[in-house]
Amino acid sequence: MSHQPTILSTCDAAYQAVREFQRAGKRVGLVPTMGALHAGHLSLVEASNRRCDATIATIFVNPTQFGPQEDLDCYPRTLAEDLTALGTLGVPFVFVPTADEMYPADFSTYVEPPAVALPLEGTMRETHFRGVTTVVLKLFHALPADVAFFGQKDYQQALVIQRMVSDLNVPIAIEVCPIVREPDGLAMSSRNVYLDPEQRQRALSLSRSLQVADEMARAGECDAQKIADHMRQHMLSSQVDQVDYAVIADPESLQEVSQLNGSAVALVAARVGNTRLIDNAVLG
Amino acid sequence: MSHQPTILSTCDAAYQAVREFQRAGKRVGLVPTMGALHAGHLSLVEASNRRCDATIATIFVNPTQFGPQEDLDCYPRTLAEDLTALGTLGVPFVFVPTADEMYPADFSTYVEPPAVALPLEGTMRETHFRGVTTVVLKLFHALPADVAFFGQKDYQQALVIQRMVSDLNVPIAIEVCPIVREPDGLAMSSRNVYLDPEQRQRALSLSRSLQVADEMARAGECDAQKIADHMRQHMLSSQVDQVDYAVIADPESLQEVSQLNGSAVALVAARVGNTRLIDNAVLG
Repeated sequence: MSHQPTILSTCDAAYQAVREFQRAGKRVGLVPTMGALHAGHLSLVEASNRRCDATIATIFVNPTQFGPQEDLDCYPRTLAEDLTALGTLGVPFVFVPTADEMYPADFSTYVEPPAVALPLEGTMRETHFRGVTTVVLKLFHALPADVAFFGQKDYQQALVIQRMVSDLNVPIAIEVCPIVREPDGLAMSSRNVYLDPEQRQRALSLSRSLQVADEMARAGECDAQKIADHMRQHMLSSQVDQVDYAVIADPESLQEVSQLNGSAVALVAARVGNTRLIDNAVLG
Repeated sequence: MSHQPTILSTCDAAYQAVREFQRAGKRVGLVPTMGALHAGHLSLVEASNRRCDATIATIFVNPTQFGPQEDLDCYPRTLAEDLTALGTLGVPFVFVPTADEMYPADFSTYVEPPAVALPLEGTMRETHFRGVTTVVLKLFHALPADVAFFGQKDYQQALVIQRMVSDLNVPIAIEVCPIVREPDGLAMSSRNVYLDPEQRQRALSLSRSLQVADEMARAGECDAQKIADHMRQHMLSSQVDQVDYAVIADPESLQEVSQLNGSAVALVAARVGNTRLIDNAVLG
């Protein structure tokens, strides 16, 4: 029953495709991705299929969200496989623009992201979220869907987008879907392909450090700094090459908390070899 | 036949009002204003009435586009008269939000305006255009009209908005309408009420300096700097209190030009008493 989705390469074509579904009374779901699709992405498509009448995906490796020292050039690109996977899930259209289509030579308007973009990834990747908010808002305009789906794996990104949508009155609903993990706990990420078998093993320390945090919280530990220290120690003793952060934070503001009362989120970022990985878990 | 428009005070109500017209197959025009309506604003409503099936106006004195030393607090507010004038033109709804509705306490996402916002007003009013792009994009989302109407009086603002819409793929058409002038040439402005009779007379030097530029260009003068110097001299000799700028610029980029070949725009800004006035004219 499945067949390859139609590739749309211009913003105009994408806009018309979404509007045509909506004129026919169909609710449209949007799944923005950078391609190199894995089960996490596909879970977003499945969530959209459940909530909406048609799901449109986008595949665009967005240059403005990569820093000058980051992995834009070697970011995995697997378009043929991505299209097959999306076709299997019944996605009729995939928007695959060029960088020139999204950023013409004289492009110069950006979205200055909300305050929740400042800590954590914001301190490690200076212009990352400006690139994210800009491209996501462009996609929301070019493909004015009813609902857009993002993964909780990028916890801070999901908050940044929700906040942008609220602050700027963007008429789209945002759904955040659970992290999808490998059987051994590693959070699905397009960047996992960078890991060799030995690094792949060491990379497990991110999700395991979150388990440590969860166990401490369940056991009644209320000292957030103590939990964060244990996460960091766990990752270092498992020989990640660098811990970028290991924090317990307020789930809305991402400000670090000193006491665990009410809900909180544990967030970690670490480097294994040249690969930078992130993961998170809501506690309690 | 005319009656008072319905006032909408929430973004949600405004959104539903626009969508209801569109669901009925009607083309909606949007006229964003800061109130204190004059014949210039009303010409935008008339243009919208000609192009669209329904015109919705907004009245919001937007705090984020005023600098700390500017006239936010004393900006003229004439809501009752504004509503009557809009009712006379058949406007069914006017969106009149509070500052809290537009900018809740934890608001923090802004639109970083395009490069064309940098010269002229951008150098004189540092965060002005950031406030303009942010509020206008919010209004475009809250009232997703088909066309929005702006006056050429704020020439740079119109360019900034057109550029933002293009860069961010905002699905709305922008129409820029001609400057409306008093019989003696003074460009209509809500701030003209600040002028006493003596200042009102001196304020004529802005539009007259543009006439000087136009006459020089028609007479074959190609040295743009010479024309700009004459504009400045004209305003100073007419005793404006300060010339902020008097330039001949490219009509798209607003970069100053040295030679008049092809089209150009003359732009002036000056202070008369405490009142800051701007005006412009396309040459050739």
